[in-house]
Amino acid sequence: MENLMLLPPEEALLRLHKVQEGMAGLCDGIIVTDNADIYYLTGRVFAGWAYIPSVGTPRWFVRRPVHLHGDDVVMVRKPEEIASHLASEERPKIVGLELDIISYTQAERLKKIFDGAEVIDATALLRQTRSVKTAFEIDMIRRSGVKHAEVYSRIPSLFNIGMTDYELQVEIEHLSRVEGCLGQFRISGQSMEFFMGNVLSGDNADAPSPYDFAMGGKGMDPSLPVGASGDEIKRGQTVMVDVNGNYTGYMTDMTRVFSLGEIPELALRAHRCSIDIHRMFSREAVPDAEASALYEKALEIVREAGLEPYYMGHRQHAGFIGHGVGIEINEWPVIAPRSRQILEEGNVIALEPKFVIPGTGAVGVENTYVVRAAGAQCLTNAPEEIIPLFE
Amino acid sequence: MENLMLLPPEEALLRLHKVQEGMAGLCDGIIVTDNADIYYLTGRVFAGWAYIPSVGTPRWFVRRPVHLHGDDVVMVRKPEEIASHLASEERPKIVGLELDIISYTQAERLKKIFDGAEVIDATALLRQTRSVKTAFEIDMIRRSGVKHAEVYSRIPSLFNIGMTDYELQVEIEHLSRVEGCLGQFRISGQSMEFFMGNVLSGDNADAPSPYDFAMGGKGMDPSLPVGASGDEIKRGQTVMVDVNGNYTGYMTDMTRVFSLGEIPELALRAHRCSIDIHRMFSREAVPDAEASALYEKALEIVREAGLEPYYMGHRQHAGFIGHGVGIEINEWPVIAPRSRQILEEGNVIALEPKFVIPGTGAVGVENTYVVRAAGAQCLTNAPEEIIPLFE
Repeated sequence: MENLMLLPPEEALLRLHKVQEGMAGLCDGIIVTDNADIYYLTGRVFAGWAYIPSVGTPRWFVRRPVHLHGDDVVMVRKPEEIASHLASEERPKIVGLELDIISYTQAERLKKIFDGAEVIDATALLRQTRSVKTAFEIDMIRRSGVKHAEVYSRIPSLFNIGMTDYELQVEIEHLSRVEGCLGQFRISGQSMEFFMGNVLSGDNADAPSPYDFAMGGKGMDPSLPVGASGDEIKRGQTVMVDVNGNYTGYMTDMTRVFSLGEIPELALRAHRCSIDIHRMFSREAVPDAEASALYEKALEIVREAGLEPYYMGHRQHAGFIGHGVGIEINEWPVIAPRSRQILEEGNVIALEPKFVIPGTGAVGVENTYVVRAAGAQCLTNAPEEIIPLFE
Repeated sequence: MENLMLLPPEEALLRLHKVQEGMAGLCDGIIVTDNADIYYLTGRVFAGWAYIPSVGTPRWFVRRPVHLHGDDVVMVRKPEEIASHLASEERPKIVGLELDIISYTQAERLKKIFDGAEVIDATALLRQTRSVKTAFEIDMIRRSGVKHAEVYSRIPSLFNIGMTDYELQVEIEHLSRVEGCLGQFRISGQSMEFFMGNVLSGDNADAPSPYDFAMGGKGMDPSLPVGASGDEIKRGQTVMVDVNGNYTGYMTDMTRVFSLGEIPELALRAHRCSIDIHRMFSREAVPDAEASALYEKALEIVREAGLEPYYMGHRQHAGFIGHGVGIEINEWPVIAPRSRQILEEGNVIALEPKFVIPGTGAVGVENTYVVRAAGAQCLTNAPEEIIPLFE
């Protein structure tokens, strides 16, 4: 037997209270079933349902695994058993469900558990809560960032002349796994798919993809049309590496650019522009900053440099330049033109102002930052300049 | 610009007609948005919505990528635009949605598109259709099976004394990727997570996991509690390898067992019992066979051998011994005690009767079969005996 709760007690309580604060005035209880939310609340994934009341102690209704125990753990087979384990005064009048995540069928089933209760969508409340990281979480992300940067520092040693983008990607994946990368790229949204990362070289960086990532790529197969295309990396091209940084269950997101031979001044200039945007962000991504204003300031820097046609893609443009990151790769806040989000201390944000230069490839840097009063602090510390492969 | 449709015209028409046959009497049209279903219908993944009428030609409403064209392709930003592109006589009175897959929020949004239309769940219809593979699909699966078996044949060369289960898994992953494995392990169900595969050694095979896989494993981190645990592979242990066979967008599922040093007679006997079940299945998994009857026949073989306590796990037992496989790893039919499914010619089924022997590890074979009138034909052809690591 094993205790269900893997978080230190004070950390578990802190997270619970953050969720409960978010619930105040919205609902009396939430049924949580998404793996990422379950992991947030307990430090582990289990199959089942957590019932979080707006006041008081959670109940953990576990379907699998069979060997968990602990305070308020109830082994169940079906969600319908939840109601009978709550005293009548504990049953919510307004219940929150993760309606933006769980299937329609699952939602309809859960709606019936508390007959007559009003149902609201708790997805935004949970995303908002998770967007402000605790010190414990920031430490998990920081540790991923250290490993992530170590792996990236060894990328030039993996490259050989004649390699394809795919071959290089496979070697980076392998090194990452050897160094303890968990592989899994946790992502929210039913239509989002990815494997371990993206290595984009030359014009493949401009191949439009169906997914809502900043960059695309043709991919190796139409069943997963994103990333490396299998073409040889050629002289005069850049290689953009944006590979999985999940070393602790909490991820960093990080991109660096490598080059083979000389690349045109336009590409170098665009890369410097990306770094300029990062400098601006480090200063200005502070509590109370508006996400949309940060997007506009970045765009202003791009416009002044005359680089707008290349910004965030050339044939297809991404609609955002930054996103929250933590348990999942696409958390809140989102740095986008129509975002109404306001930054808070403890937000962890990956900023990825990137450019696609036709004939050359993608340039630009991605770093993961934690928002602090004194400015955004970088958690992915590694040289930002374009790194030559074979000088 | 690139044509949306990647399937040969006759294959596209065949799959469309299969879906339309399934719709007969149930609904007038389906809005399809799941990546696996979109891939089934077009041979590619795009972000958007397919509208499939029960009679006539589909319309492809594409949000991303931006460069697709072709007959009946309409670029849209929102699903609400779908209605205006259909003539009033084309609008369904009964519309099917993938209610078991798409989120509640997305379903509610799609329900409003055809105001006043009755909404039904089309998930089962699509799963049923996809469970009977076309010759084209079987060929894709067969090609994955060939690569899959090739990679497995080289596993002994990857092993060194002193390796952990995790280290061996990473090397198998790497070899798989070098040989063209797409990495992605497409799986249905919001709570299912996996990386590239499962390498289980010794008693870790018996560690209960939250996921609905046949075997568990502790995993390397509580954020993904399944698979290799990082323990050294020791003499007297088995190593069960069940790693991703997605080489073509269509997967095979395959498990083989390796051993280090002598393993007890009980483990050898259980492994032979698994092979006996496969022989039975090869003969009896024919059109019109009942899935539940096949489950019972397998269980009978296990009981006769006196191996029931070890069957499908020891501390935690899996509730099924086989499952459909194709675009996703958990397709229909399911070989389980309460399954009401009847096998059809062209079903592709992974059968995985496995045992966990305390102190030794997991044994048993998994093969992927196509159901034919003459019996189930194996698509994962490789030696089934336990393979020694370092004789």
